[in-house]
Parts: sequence; C-alpha cells; structure tokens
Amino acid sequence: MPNAASLDLLTHLRELLGEAHVLTEGDLSAYEQDWRKRTRGKALAVVRPSKTQEVAEVVKACAKAGVSIVPQGGNTGLVVGGIPDDTGTQVLLSLQRMNAVRAVDTDNLTLTVEAGCVLQNLQQAAEQAGFLFPLSLGAEGSCTIGGNLATNAGGTQVLRYGNARELCLGLEVVTAQGEVMHSLSGLRKDNTGYDLRNLMIGSEGTLGIITAATMKLYPMPAVSLTAWAAVPSVACAVKLLGLAHQHLGAGLTGFEMMGQFALHLVDKHYPHLRVPLWQDTPYCVLLENSDSESEAHARERFEHLLGLAFEDGCVSDAVVAESLSQARNLWHIRESITLAQAEEGLNIKHDISVPISSIPNFVEATDALLMREIPGIRLVNFGHLGDGNLHYNVQAPEHCDTKAFLRDNEDRVNTWVYQSVKRFGGSISAEHGVGSMKVDSLPDYKDPVALALMQHIKRALDPQGLLNPGRVVR
Amino acid sequence: MPNAASLDLLTHLRELLGEAHVLTEGDLSAYEQDWRKRTRGKALAVVRPSKTQEVAEVVKACAKAGVSIVPQGGNTGLVVGGIPDDTGTQVLLSLQRMNAVRAVDTDNLTLTVEAGCVLQNLQQAAEQAGFLFPLSLGAEGSCTIGGNLATNAGGTQVLRYGNARELCLGLEVVTAQGEVMHSLSGLRKDNTGYDLRNLMIGSEGTLGIITAATMKLYPMPAVSLTAWAAVPSVACAVKLLGLAHQHLGAGLTGFEMMGQFALHLVDKHYPHLRVPLWQDTPYCVLLENSDSESEAHARERFEHLLGLAFEDGCVSDAVVAESLSQARNLWHIRESITLAQAEEGLNIKHDISVPISSIPNFVEATDALLMREIPGIRLVNFGHLGDGNLHYNVQAPEHCDTKAFLRDNEDRVNTWVYQSVKRFGGSISAEHGVGSMKVDSLPDYKDPVALALMQHIKRALDPQGLLNPGRVVR
Repeated sequence: MPNAASLDLLTHLRELLGEAHVLTEGDLSAYEQDWRKRTRGKALAVVRPSKTQEVAEVVKACAKAGVSIVPQGGNTGLVVGGIPDDTGTQVLLSLQRMNAVRAVDTDNLTLTVEAGCVLQNLQQAAEQAGFLFPLSLGAEGSCTIGGNLATNAGGTQVLRYGNARELCLGLEVVTAQGEVMHSLSGLRKDNTGYDLRNLMIGSEGTLGIITAATMKLYPMPAVSLTAWAAVPSVACAVKLLGLAHQHLGAGLTGFEMMGQFALHLVDKHYPHLRVPLWQDTPYCVLLENSDSESEAHARERFEHLLGLAFEDGCVSDAVVAESLSQARNLWHIRESITLAQAEEGLNIKHDISVPISSIPNFVEATDALLMREIPGIRLVNFGHLGDGNLHYNVQAPEHCDTKAFLRDNEDRVNTWVYQSVKRFGGSISAEHGVGSMKVDSLPDYKDPVALALMQHIKRALDPQGLLNPGRVVR
Repeated sequence: MPNAASLDLLTHLRELLGEAHVLTEGDLSAYEQDWRKRTRGKALAVVRPSKTQEVAEVVKACAKAGVSIVPQGGNTGLVVGGIPDDTGTQVLLSLQRMNAVRAVDTDNLTLTVEAGCVLQNLQQAAEQAGFLFPLSLGAEGSCTIGGNLATNAGGTQVLRYGNARELCLGLEVVTAQGEVMHSLSGLRKDNTGYDLRNLMIGSEGTLGIITAATMKLYPMPAVSLTAWAAVPSVACAVKLLGLAHQHLGAGLTGFEMMGQFALHLVDKHYPHLRVPLWQDTPYCVLLENSDSESEAHARERFEHLLGLAFEDGCVSDAVVAESLSQARNLWHIRESITLAQAEEGLNIKHDISVPISSIPNFVEATDALLMREIPGIRLVNFGHLGDGNLHYNVQAPEHCDTKAFLRDNEDRVNTWVYQSVKRFGGSISAEHGVGSMKVDSLPDYKDPVALALMQHIKRALDPQGLLNPGRVVR
C-alpha cells in the first residue's frame, strides 16, 4: 500500500503524463516480469512518457520524492536488469511510446531514433532508405534500441560491425537530476572531452536514461552468402577463422561455432530443419560472406577460402548455400539451438567470452572439469566464435529430475565455469550485461580497481542512488 | 626555487627511480616545450619510470605531497596538453621508457604494448607478425600509443578502422590514487560494467595514466591502390564518397579532400611533387582502396567506381596510381599541405568536424563569411572528408605582415569558424583534443549538461585535482 508521499508522487505523475500513462492496476506482468520468467517484481507505477521532456519531468518528480526509477525498453533482457524489485516502491519508466524515427541522413550514413523504437523497425527504416543497420539478434522483434544501447547488445554481426556501442555516434540522455544531455551528433570524430556516450552505453540505466540515439548506417551488401563447415576440433575452427579474416577481409560478417550435442538437440527436436554434416564431427561452423559486388564473386571467394581450408585440414566437409532459403535455413538451425535446449529441459546458461586464442584450451579444460564433477552432464556449446563469445550452456544428464538438478548444481556449475573463464582472462558477461543476476558475482571476477572506479562514477552521477539501484554496481 | 616539501618529493622520487631518471637540470626543452613551439613550461622535475609499478609509486608520492602530474608520451600533441605549466611545481611524467611490446596474439588478432611504444614501432611489430595495425598519422615516427589513446588520435585510416578508441580492446591504467587497474583483456565483448576503457581514452591524462594497452590487429590487405579525382564541388565530393562506400564497401580505406588553394601551395613550394589535376577544379579527392584479393581486382573495382562517378558527373577527371611510388607520391602531396602552409607563412589552424551531409553548406557559408570579413583572406581547406573532419585553415592575405595578421585576427577568426561549426552541429576539436588550448572555449560550444557530467567525473576520479590539471575540464 503506497504511503502518502508515494500517493503525492502518483498524483504529480498523472498531471505530467495523463491518467492513461501512469499504470498502477490491472495486469502489469509485461512490465513487471522478466523475459525468462525467472523473477516477478512489483512497481509503484508504470509510467509511459511520450517525449524527452516528459522523461525529464518524471525523473525530477521522482528525485524530489526520493523514489527510484527502473528504465525499461522491450523488456527482453536476460539478466533481470529492467524490471522493478518486489517492494512496490519503484517507478517503472517504459520508453515504449518514444518510438519515432526522428531523421535519416543518407549522406552522413546515420539515422536518429528514439529509445523505444523496436530494433526491427529501425532495421526496416534503414532498409527503406537503401541502407543496412547491422545490429541483429534473436529478440529483434521486441527489443528496443534504447535497451540495446543500455546493455550494449551484441548479436550475430559483431564480428564485422561491432556491438551496439560501435554502431552509435550520439545520444540524448536524461540525467539522474532530470537534465537533458543533447549529444545527438552524427559525428565520426569529436574529441571535446570525456566519452560520455560510451559511459552511458552499457550502464543499464544506472547512470542516465537514454531517450534517443544517432546510429550508423552501412551500404547494403550486394549479396550475402552462407556456408556450413564441419571442423575436426575447436582449434581448427579458430584456424578457419584466421583464414576467413585473411581471405574474405571485411566480407566476413558471421562466424558461428556449434558443438555436436547442440546440433543433435536441434536435429532431435526440429528434424525438419535437416541439420547438415553434424553427425561425424565434433563441431560445425556457419560462415557468412557479404559482398559489395555480386553473387558470383562472393561464391568464388568462399570456394577459394574453403579450398585452402580443406588443404590445410582445418575443414573436413562443407556446403555453400545455393539459395536464399537454404541460407536462411542454416541461420535458422543456429538460432534454434536455444529453443531446442528448452525443449530438452531446464538448463544452465552462460554468456562468456575469452580471448579467441584461448578458446580451444578453455573448452577442453572446462569440458573436462564439468564431466569429471558431474558424470553424464551434457554440454551445449555454441556461439559467436569470431568475437570470442560462447554460450557455454549446461544441460542436465539424461533422464534426471531437471528441477532438482538445477537446485543442486546451478551455483556450483556457475562457479566452475566462471573460475575457468577468469583463469583464461575472460568475461562472465560477454553480451547480456550484469543486471541483478550478476551484480554480486562481479567482485569475484572483476578487477577491484575497476570496480571501485565504477562505484565512484555511480556516486558522482547519481548521488541519490535512484537510477536502477542494485543493478551493475552496488 | 623548489620549497622544502618539493625537495623532499624529489628525494623520494630519486629513491624510487634512481638519480638518472629524475631530471631537474640541463636542457629539458624536449619535455617542456610543446610540439608547435607555441608554449614553454617549466617542470619541478621530469621523471621517467620504466614500469607500471614505478608509475604507481610516483603517483602515490606526488599525491602525498599534493604535487600535480602531467603525463607525456612523444610530446607531439597539438593542443598544449602534455607539457607542464610555467610554475615549476608540476612533475612531468614521461612514459617513453615504457616502450616494450609485451605480447602478440595472432589468433586473437591483438597486440599488447606499453604506453611509451612509438606508433611506428607498433606498426612494425604488427607487420613482422604478418598483420596490419592501421592507426597512421603524420607524427607516427615520434608519437606514442599511450599519447594516441590519451588523445583518441585519428589520422588517415579512420574511415575504415576507426579512431584510436576503436582500435583498443583493453587498458592498464594507474589511477589518481596510484592504484593499478588491470584491464588488458583482449576481449571483443565484455559487458561487466561501465566502459572505463573508453572513459580513459580521450581523457588526456586527466582521469588516469595509461601504462599499457591491448590493440586490435587486422589482416594485411593484399594490395592498396590510390586514385586521385578532380571534383567540381564539395557536394560532388560527398556524392563520390557515397558511391565509394557503396561500390568499394570496406575496401574504402581513405578519402581525403583538398581545396585548390591548398594544392596550389604544395605546387608552389614543392613543384617536384607534380600535383595532378588541380588547376582546373575547385577540389581534388584522394581515394584509397584496400583489397584482400589482388591488384587486378582492386583496379577493376576502382575503374568501375570512377566510371560510375564520371557518368554521374561528380568526377570530372581522375587518375589511378600505376605503381607503389606513384601512390606514395599522391599521399605525399596530401601530407605536404601543412608544410607548404608553413612555408607560405603563419596561419590559423582548425581541426573541426560536422556531419558529412552538412559539409557542402558549412564550407560555402564559412568561406563566404570569412571572405566578407577579411578581404583577401586565403582558405586552406583539406581533410578527412570520409570522417567529416576538415582542417579548415586560414592563411593571411598575400603580402601582409603575418604576425600582425595573427595578432589582430586569430581570436575572431576562431570565433567565426567555431560559431559556424556549432550552427552545423559540429565539433571544434575533431581529432586533436582539448588540452589547454581549447579548454576555455568548451563552455561556449559544448552541451552544458555534458560539461557538468565531465566535471562530476573529474572530481570523482581525481578529487585532489592532481592529474594534468587545467586540461580538458576546469
């Protein structure tokens, strides 16, 4: 039951936004429950401002009332960073109504959008202008560009185009004091002081609220071809990656590795997808080659590369998709691994990275450790090898009670995997962020001086601690 | 004359580093005078630590004594950001002895170097390993990677590979408290908290001292070809840039625009360079196409592009270099503009950026304004058009007293140019940084909320204000 001060705040918020955009009743699960349905929070209110100035007014009102704010985009985050806690005292600030494409500048190769624009709509706006916006990930039909930036989203095109961070040239941000920082420049070079853009990107709404962004556009490739290769080992996959960098140059836009068991699950649960080449090889690789010339040229480059890789022994078999539908199917197989895992039962997910050169040893050592500690454990290893980012997931042994397995093993499996990541100089969150889920693990795995600097910055920019408290840094 | 506390500090520093590396006498102009010889400072001492721990100890000693520190790399900065002030009370901390290449990891495409490594040596270490380190700029024989990162250096390859910022994956930094942040990861994805790497990059030594960095390597292109095109207008140059992005894709690694008067100066002072095509056109463009295949393929792509550009009318004449020496000569012409300007006499330099789409209008409006205000003024306009970055320089009218001209006009010319930059949404420092030279201009041209956030961050990370005080932010 809200207290008197909270009721005053609600009245004030209703004056600012109108009754219809301050939600306190009815089914608010779309805002209060996290994407993976692991946690359910309870907001004092869900507020839905429609413009930057309204966001600023909401922040000022909350700051005055000492009420904390959880910003939210499409609520597709995987680390419980965008829903309120369960106290019923936080304001959930949804950016979904701020979804306009403000400007497309084709000479500058930029597009300026509001934070609540759904990623797929942004991709389509770029395409309509004849250009590519390369950020692409599973949740693109629901996630918003503001959330992508707040969490520095990755996805499948990072190898060539970088993370969300590298695709952004400017931001408009509402600070913890309710001031608006206008830095929506479309400049590729600007050395007039500290890099506030990158500080805000990846800060998960704890330092400021991103309300709009200027993003980079790229020329649309003339053609993208997809190949699928069987590789005899992880080390061979790394070698193939090196060859692909050398011979495809910037044409190499995708390089995904998938372990045999991961592909077995897709084959088992989605047999119509007809997974190629997986049965006789420990790993397969999906490669994408985007070409500014022609399909014939792209195909010739792929065949040249794969010829060299055969000779070298780092590829044992390969196919190049003959049609767009074949190419889509190969990507679809890759993207179905997570769903196939879910079909198979509960599992423990990781989103880790290590230097690419360490991946073969990391996989070997971690596989051996887990199989020794938990006989029968099944490893679903796949991910963006070109970025050093693996979704190194762990499935319970066959025919076991998966709920009990998770209860008894999740923490220790996480610890084993994270310790191994640390030993190889890696990160326990490559692309999903920290949220509430990993905030208490950071002190064990992150440089203590870096962590102390983060705390200083949080206190400097949000001294009241009202922006998404308890996420990223305590 | 140093006071007693300062003398104690000097004794302490000598104990830490040895007599030979705490310099207080003799000719210290290499450390105390700025690159363009506009300002001369006076240090309490020049200290030359040889390892990270020594840097940390120096910082702790200075912090205890309340003495401020100016970090310095190759001392090639252009904004007076790396020399001491004239009070004789600051410690100049040179990173030049920390110049080791610590590791080359070809599978991870990274190279880890100490801050004092000269850029050219880094380029060579990459080349010896069979890879490209693409950061390239005029001072590369003297500047250090630590300085490049502290100022987020740009140069001629930004169009394809980004600024120094985009080439860095990890840093080792000594904080204002003398702690060492160990974040030399070679990870392409790491979302475990705030982006301290990018906060340090471009902070010009005011938030921490970069002691080492992990930098990206790229596959060496099979061939780089250079072309030179006459364009009828700035708008045509922008159009050609769009066509080049579309048809060369990531092969486009250089796009430099040069105005007729800039080329006239090169022709006048260095006639042996034989500047092509400049006499009948207001602007020329230098294009570089780097190809992962072959010279024949690169040439075919260039010819295809230039054919389209002729048809379109955005190019009136063009040559493609037939040999490496011809290509080098074209780049040499581009790089000789600054020297030719110096031969011609004193001038007013700018390092500005605006959105690429605004460049034609910016140039037209600013040219007109300056020519109206100062009859006979000569505009030396050239720069990295592909990044929106112009060195829009201003030369005194012919046959005038250039010293008097500068004295009477420098401030007002700067104001006109900067106001015009602001009107077009640009930056008054695209690639050179802020230093002491532009710190007092920032409040007039930078978003006030951004400036306030910068001040909060400075106070949070360096509460004593001892790291390079008075630079970047007051």
